[in-house]
Amino acid sequence: MKVGYLGPAGSFTHTAVRALYPDAVLKDYKSIPDTIDAVKNEETDAALVPLENTIEGSVNLTLDYLIHHERLPIIKELTIPIRQHLLVHPLLKDSWQDKVKVIFSHPHAISQCHLFIREHMPHARVEYAGSTAAAAEYASSHPDEAVAAIANAGAAELYGLHTASNDINDYVNNHTRFVALGKNQGTTLAELKELKGTGSKTTVVITLPEDHSGALHQVLSAFAWRRLNLTKIESRPMKTGLGNYLFIIDISREMDDVLLPGAIKEIEALGCGVSILGSYPCFLLEEKKPFPE
Amino acid sequence: MKVGYLGPAGSFTHTAVRALYPDAVLKDYKSIPDTIDAVKNEETDAALVPLENTIEGSVNLTLDYLIHHERLPIIKELTIPIRQHLLVHPLLKDSWQDKVKVIFSHPHAISQCHLFIREHMPHARVEYAGSTAAAAEYASSHPDEAVAAIANAGAAELYGLHTASNDINDYVNNHTRFVALGKNQGTTLAELKELKGTGSKTTVVITLPEDHSGALHQVLSAFAWRRLNLTKIESRPMKTGLGNYLFIIDISREMDDVLLPGAIKEIEALGCGVSILGSYPCFLLEEKKPFPE
Repeated sequence: MKVGYLGPAGSFTHTAVRALYPDAVLKDYKSIPDTIDAVKNEETDAALVPLENTIEGSVNLTLDYLIHHERLPIIKELTIPIRQHLLVHPLLKDSWQDKVKVIFSHPHAISQCHLFIREHMPHARVEYAGSTAAAAEYASSHPDEAVAAIANAGAAELYGLHTASNDINDYVNNHTRFVALGKNQGTTLAELKELKGTGSKTTVVITLPEDHSGALHQVLSAFAWRRLNLTKIESRPMKTGLGNYLFIIDISREMDDVLLPGAIKEIEALGCGVSILGSYPCFLLEEKKPFPE
Repeated sequence: MKVGYLGPAGSFTHTAVRALYPDAVLKDYKSIPDTIDAVKNEETDAALVPLENTIEGSVNLTLDYLIHHERLPIIKELTIPIRQHLLVHPLLKDSWQDKVKVIFSHPHAISQCHLFIREHMPHARVEYAGSTAAAAEYASSHPDEAVAAIANAGAAELYGLHTASNDINDYVNNHTRFVALGKNQGTTLAELKELKGTGSKTTVVITLPEDHSGALHQVLSAFAWRRLNLTKIESRPMKTGLGNYLFIIDISREMDDVLLPGAIKEIEALGCGVSILGSYPCFLLEEKKPFPE
């Protein structure tokens, strides 16, 4: 099995794809659309992309591409904790506190470690990289520049960097949700015993018949009286102009549940458009190591 | 008046801040938290940051910082069309089609122009910059490298670049929503006659008493029977762990409307927490020029 992911190697998506497809041949792509297109073009069997609260990618890009371009089904979900570390070249192991004058990372990672930087390195200059992994690679290949990268444990390992300070992100309960897209499950669920199963979800996209105040309320009534639990709801522009919205709703459910099809029929009868982006099992990656060595 | 914005100069936020505060002294900041903190520290009187569907910034960062750190009120909203152009050094004006082998921009801008790149420049190598403006600055200062930047018309003007191909983003109806944060309005609304007024909004953050299936439905009932029009609803993790969500809801309303306070009281009576992020006038920037010269 061949699985594509949003690269480069050492990114959070790389951590996710290794956990969800431990035996697959992996291939990194430069963008979310490229990663998804590769499945369509049969270069790969599945695509692993970030969906929510991410660093390198963007929720918007993934959802927009799924909704407007390629309706590849979501087949699996993996949530991983986002832990950022301050990484330096091994030669700077004992001297980084005096020598490092530049912090290098993706803009979102920099912002996520805003309080740490302000408190511990207020005089360091911040420079931006295209990804956390690219910043780690730069720190590794430029020992003379005394630059510190902010990146994850996988990047530290891949580029042989020393962890000068671990878990420097401002929020400890920070997670990113990744999804696998493809035409079939690939890995059997039994093979994923390292991961914690957290149930199943269905993701639907609903377009309202017209922009009136109570339409969304009617849609949610169809879920509420069946006691279907919505774990996420988000309105997004339809790209046909300002003010037209579609709704993306995640419903937590058993895979053999019979209530959801009824709710969807009821919502369609209200004049709404309903598309199912996938019904899929969900997993959580629990890190064992307290922090990278 | 002094207004901070998410820089660098030539970014989309820079376009927005110039439109919303035409007479202010502007100061660019490196991150969304820095831009917001500057108001708190009284370095600036207001902050201009992206809120939705953005390129350089992230919705998540702005909302999270407002909700969890600094409750600065939203005082104005500006929506601007996102138009991306392929920019080259003027020396490459007639030869770019043969010479350019590298496209340089922010990862999100690259993804937004995915179809253009695939169709017109399939053999170009893609390189990532920390912002679209940084890519334009690089193209301007490295004529010998024959690099094309993807950035906006403001960056083309600021860095003296030639527009090789205009409006190359895949979606024409792509907009970004920016908000101004601060303690008082600053500019009077009469001064903004270049902008189109699009009404007023109130943004509220609602936390549910417990994670049960019908709670959100109850909250929306309070808006629905008053015919209050929700223009956006989004659930977001509360950062206290997976599965705890808060809801961010935008309500379109007249500034002197009397129905919303009643709805908020009713929602609080249900046991929900309600915080108002601001009640503010909204504007749209309509571009006059078909594309930059």
